[in-house]
Amino acid sequence: MGIDNVRIVMVSPLYGGNVGSVCRAMANMGLSDLAIVAPVGLDMEEARKMCCSATALLEGRRTFGSLEEAVADCGLVMGATARPGLYRSHSLSPRELAPRVLAAAKTAKVALVFGREDNGLTNEELAICTQIIKIPSTPEYTSLNVSHAVMVCCYEIFASSGLYDPPSERSEEAPSLVREQMFAIWRETLLKLGFMKEDKALHMMLGLRRVLSRGRLTRNDVKIMMGIARQAMWAAERAAEAGAKKAVKRPSNTRPA
Amino acid sequence: MGIDNVRIVMVSPLYGGNVGSVCRAMANMGLSDLAIVAPVGLDMEEARKMCCSATALLEGRRTFGSLEEAVADCGLVMGATARPGLYRSHSLSPRELAPRVLAAAKTAKVALVFGREDNGLTNEELAICTQIIKIPSTPEYTSLNVSHAVMVCCYEIFASSGLYDPPSERSEEAPSLVREQMFAIWRETLLKLGFMKEDKALHMMLGLRRVLSRGRLTRNDVKIMMGIARQAMWAAERAAEAGAKKAVKRPSNTRPA
Repeated sequence: MGIDNVRIVMVSPLYGGNVGSVCRAMANMGLSDLAIVAPVGLDMEEARKMCCSATALLEGRRTFGSLEEAVADCGLVMGATARPGLYRSHSLSPRELAPRVLAAAKTAKVALVFGREDNGLTNEELAICTQIIKIPSTPEYTSLNVSHAVMVCCYEIFASSGLYDPPSERSEEAPSLVREQMFAIWRETLLKLGFMKEDKALHMMLGLRRVLSRGRLTRNDVKIMMGIARQAMWAAERAAEAGAKKAVKRPSNTRPA
Repeated sequence: MGIDNVRIVMVSPLYGGNVGSVCRAMANMGLSDLAIVAPVGLDMEEARKMCCSATALLEGRRTFGSLEEAVADCGLVMGATARPGLYRSHSLSPRELAPRVLAAAKTAKVALVFGREDNGLTNEELAICTQIIKIPSTPEYTSLNVSHAVMVCCYEIFASSGLYDPPSERSEEAPSLVREQMFAIWRETLLKLGFMKEDKALHMMLGLRRVLSRGRLTRNDVKIMMGIARQAMWAAERAAEAGAKKAVKRPSNTRPA
């Protein structure tokens, strides 16, 4: 149930490469039900090349003589068109359609129908569709490659499905206490390095705080920055010991003007 | 400024067809700045075939010897990877990156970097990127065709840009007064047609109301439904007149059980 109930229907595709690319896009987005209507002389070698690892999906495709047959068992039937005019005013964007598709797919098959590479869907075919899909594009170039159109729709459905496990093991944002320990070590280090004097320390540290506070700063990030500061402090102390024995010239260009 | 500042960078693409498909995807989504890093023996005939009408974009591509050179003038540099592990925990989805890209593109060039078809981006190349992009996909098949990956990112950026003029000439939803006029005519028509008797009229009309209230019902929709009702009423009246002259058998199967 759910996303398994979503069928992609390609009406009379001309190029095997596009059929293969559609298979790959579907497999990437967790779909598996592909119907082809009235194909004519598809180059299946091209299809196998472009589907990459989605060969099972390609081989499992079903072929129908007409769109009516391909969607006979489907509730919602959504047809994609780039044509302006009549349909535009009733069309849904892929983002709008995704939750509707998923809601309908809980209880019935849903079809997303894509037309020929050169001419899209006929008016008769669009009439069979309960909804019209219009993918956002610049008015200068509204015609998408069919596999790109399928990808955008499948991507929106997959993204809405809750099946995608977004990066969740993100390291926790460092709490203030831990950040302040880091800044305290950096303060001490920068003083020992001679990068700043005590009277300028607050000002200089505000600069460093600003740089390190622009984005998220995780516990791991803090560990790295503390490690660098400690190592630099160690070097500063060794340098100071050596300098106590014989005068060593500090680099002159490490301090901002 | 804005979306014009967004550059797509393809690192060592292997297939001209993919370069062409990327050009078409970019042109569909209003982008125009394509950089190719260190291409080796691209089939440009394939590229021209797959770019369709985006030939100006294809011919206007710039070629660089290294990723460093291709992004030298860019602020944000975002690299796409399907690899799990280290990067996953710091990655952004295309939906998350879109507003960041557009904000940064107001004042500086922004690069979206895509790797080789077989091996993606190297760790050294990912290190140059300020952000990592991870496109949602099923864990079973995470590797997208490069032009599909570009399309999903460009689509999200275009959809966030406010440049897309969504279907806005949608006919206004019919107000209750207009809907009730329609239902009143249908009530009269169904009585005259003999579809229902006065004592069942409320019940039958609730069914019709339910069917016509499931989705939006615009002023245009109401006009169509009123036109049908009026035409049927006219036919019912003519039939009644004729029936008054000689008995005419009504169809027996038009009323629900």
